[in-house]
Amino acid sequence: MAGGPAGRRPRVHPADEPLLLADDLAAVRGDGCFETLLVVGGRAAKPERHLARLGRSAAALELTGPDEQEWLAGIGMATREWGAESEGVLRLVLSRGPERGGPETAYITVGPVGPQVLRARAEGVAVTVLIRGFASDVADSAPWLLLGSKTLSYATNMAAVRHAAANGFDDVVYVSSEGEVLEGPRSTVVIERAGELLSPPQEVGILEGTTLGAMTAVARQAGVTVRRERLLVADLLAADAVWLVSSVTLAARVRRIDGVALPSTVPGVDVARLVDRAVGRP
Amino acid sequence: MAGGPAGRRPRVHPADEPLLLADDLAAVRGDGCFETLLVVGGRAAKPERHLARLGRSAAALELTGPDEQEWLAGIGMATREWGAESEGVLRLVLSRGPERGGPETAYITVGPVGPQVLRARAEGVAVTVLIRGFASDVADSAPWLLLGSKTLSYATNMAAVRHAAANGFDDVVYVSSEGEVLEGPRSTVVIERAGELLSPPQEVGILEGTTLGAMTAVARQAGVTVRRERLLVADLLAADAVWLVSSVTLAARVRRIDGVALPSTVPGVDVARLVDRAVGRP
Repeated sequence: MAGGPAGRRPRVHPADEPLLLADDLAAVRGDGCFETLLVVGGRAAKPERHLARLGRSAAALELTGPDEQEWLAGIGMATREWGAESEGVLRLVLSRGPERGGPETAYITVGPVGPQVLRARAEGVAVTVLIRGFASDVADSAPWLLLGSKTLSYATNMAAVRHAAANGFDDVVYVSSEGEVLEGPRSTVVIERAGELLSPPQEVGILEGTTLGAMTAVARQAGVTVRRERLLVADLLAADAVWLVSSVTLAARVRRIDGVALPSTVPGVDVARLVDRAVGRP
Repeated sequence: MAGGPAGRRPRVHPADEPLLLADDLAAVRGDGCFETLLVVGGRAAKPERHLARLGRSAAALELTGPDEQEWLAGIGMATREWGAESEGVLRLVLSRGPERGGPETAYITVGPVGPQVLRARAEGVAVTVLIRGFASDVADSAPWLLLGSKTLSYATNMAAVRHAAANGFDDVVYVSSEGEVLEGPRSTVVIERAGELLSPPQEVGILEGTTLGAMTAVARQAGVTVRRERLLVADLLAADAVWLVSSVTLAARVRRIDGVALPSTVPGVDVARLVDRAVGRP
């Protein structure tokens, strides 16, 4: 675990020693942003995409943060600490710093990939559709809602996942108040239809998925089209296959949406393989 | 500053020493709840109302937390540390604890009242009306949105206040997607109309204000009616007076709403005095 204030040289901080002051705005206001990266073969996957998104989130929050070289130095230190033997989860955190005043807080954690992630990769997931409460046109008109930013304020995302689990589901697909498909609380929705891959456009008020971006580049080389298109729940139910893609879980095939089992046929496009290649996984 | 895991005896923790592990879910997910209390004359104001609301927030988040006696012991310790000479801000924080596993995190901070608070009390505030993006009927149907809970995920509230400040305003009044008046990011809206005080009902998807509750009890004794009624922005503009009430700022008279100056006449009901009495302020 590497920590320290923004703008200083990174240093290793023992994981079992407190790092944050009690009034750090990360803790008392969720006032900051983060990224989660997969560590595979001793290297963090697609760091440039995560740093670009972290930079956009920081700008939306009016935070500065370490520059790209400083983050890369910290990522290098954290991945060396983690080693190459097993996959890991690396998190970049940037907060406004202590409420009493002082520099922004920037740190990196690294830890193991959880068993739920491994199960979702291997067996797929059952998802429930939940409203996120916003109309799909609100992101542009109300920037204070921070809809395109990956902020530390994830309480409702975690509550949605708990709500799903209490009803026997592994994960969630959010829809807008008009019923448009948005995203998962921790993932991007991708469907296969007639040999093409489709995913909702960012302007419906969702995060721009780094895994979707990296996968799109790999898919293009493989002759597979990835298009951004507005989707309804009916489009998921009628799809040849549905996935949740994300940086750590990678590709989780959706097996069931609420009461409806999805077709278990072999899909035409091997999304899991495309994602593996996108993150440099053997 | 008193800290420590839930269920243990409180102890004093120096404010300048780190308290939280880097993966505390308060910091990396905003996954917890909090309360902010005014310390006046060496005592925390209306602790029972704050502890009741903290209990409701914790239940919505499926957290347990210290029991009321444990919190009161911590509050007593924190207020003794602070002393009786000046007003203070005391914060109760409860999070799900470290992501790696372990007990919930519970702690208390205490610090000074900021200059913006003193100015808002003395001079009132100019507010801008911003949408919160939700319909006013969503709280009941979508409990995962945690609309009645005071969670640590306040990034959008802080962004709304920054957006207001960038446009020359001191604070915000949120409206629902239908234009119903909701609340401030850190306060409850109260208006005076024809000698009565009115405030939006909780079912529009807002926090139940502890200051409004305490003030209502005091007002009743003084023969002043406080009613809960759905309000539109036009009701604010036509009111005899508009206030934002909250636990630390207490009562801030609203002087301007966007481009419209509100009447500066002496109101019929002295809301500031009612709130002072409600919090035991001389």
